[in-house]
Amino acid sequence: MLFISLEGGEGAGKTTQAVRLLERIESAGLRCLRVREPGSTALGADLRRLIKRSNTSDEALSRAAELFLFAAARSELVTKVIAPQRDDPDLVVVADRFADSTLAYQGYGRGIDIETIKAVNALATHGIAPDLTFLLDCPHEIGISRVRGLQLQMPLDAVKPSDSADRNVEGMKFEEEPAEFHERIRLGFLALADLEPDRWRIVDATRSINIISDEIWKAVQDRLPVTANP
Amino acid sequence: MLFISLEGGEGAGKTTQAVRLLERIESAGLRCLRVREPGSTALGADLRRLIKRSNTSDEALSRAAELFLFAAARSELVTKVIAPQRDDPDLVVVADRFADSTLAYQGYGRGIDIETIKAVNALATHGIAPDLTFLLDCPHEIGISRVRGLQLQMPLDAVKPSDSADRNVEGMKFEEEPAEFHERIRLGFLALADLEPDRWRIVDATRSINIISDEIWKAVQDRLPVTANP
Repeated sequence: MLFISLEGGEGAGKTTQAVRLLERIESAGLRCLRVREPGSTALGADLRRLIKRSNTSDEALSRAAELFLFAAARSELVTKVIAPQRDDPDLVVVADRFADSTLAYQGYGRGIDIETIKAVNALATHGIAPDLTFLLDCPHEIGISRVRGLQLQMPLDAVKPSDSADRNVEGMKFEEEPAEFHERIRLGFLALADLEPDRWRIVDATRSINIISDEIWKAVQDRLPVTANP
Repeated sequence: MLFISLEGGEGAGKTTQAVRLLERIESAGLRCLRVREPGSTALGADLRRLIKRSNTSDEALSRAAELFLFAAARSELVTKVIAPQRDDPDLVVVADRFADSTLAYQGYGRGIDIETIKAVNALATHGIAPDLTFLLDCPHEIGISRVRGLQLQMPLDAVKPSDSADRNVEGMKFEEEPAEFHERIRLGFLALADLEPDRWRIVDATRSINIISDEIWKAVQDRLPVTANP
């Protein structure tokens, strides 16, 4: 199994790039499994609905409850979906967010102690970490304008309607946070990338979809199993 | 605020004793708030339903997901219900299970690392701990026979129908675990009590409801606010 994660702030283009990457991996003759958080399991889908509903109610979830719900969804995803396929050499897993998002959002963003989050992540991931992580990095103003413009002008060739609906659900939540919150998240992601340069690739996400997907694909090709036909 | 928790294995009599204690506290002229885990908040009720549903399905939740769902519910309970009333001198909170149950069930029972659970509990409780904790201690055979007999012969004078229904839902889950699991939990609770003798009172829960509730009430009276009329 090759495990790739896409990380970044709101509107950075993770979902669009995940769909592009999936298409290219499958064209190369490999099996590709796209997962997203929270979701991709029965519990994850339920928790996504709970988080969504609390976002539209007057009373926000406590920041610790939010952390634990994401951790519960991740634990199910790893235990039920990723870990059982770990030894399949022809499978590529593409995750739209993974444990690094929790460090960036709940740690750097919401201010929960980083060491506590690392302990939570270690338990939730069972020690399974991505082999390769792309940080789609862009200033918050650009990302948020993309999220807000998404319903007006959708890149229909790249993203399925269901993806855009889901992305808006998530965007709804963090959109209301101040710009400083998103700036802390961006710096958090960059700090995480700095700590593990072998795993992370920082991608300038202000550029066009095609240029970014070509850059990601080039980096992924070097890591694909030899059975692939690139 | 005086914060009292009731702990113990399945069928030890926590819910019955919580109801008795609540009645006596209110008779003494104090406000009493009874809370239970998971529950007592909108999120807690939703998570209780999710846990219940997963218990009746073929596929059990991963042990880490279970831990995180209980932690999320506890975080909401502390943030939304307990912490805002912390400075009320005339309030007694009676919790049917609290953070110690997580150490006993998910730690000693399911084998999750105790230090990780302590970090999770610390975040979920915001440092709020019970002033007094009663461990209703009894051998598993006695507790489980009470849970199984509950539908046949309910102590209707002590427990409302809704309580018994909920308790059966929880019993359903852990009932299926082997006796060794429950024995580990019992020893875990006793070890926790041993570490903090000032907070814990070990109560022999094999005795009658009246004798136990008298013993609990005696210990609680010494700690009640001076405004009470015992």
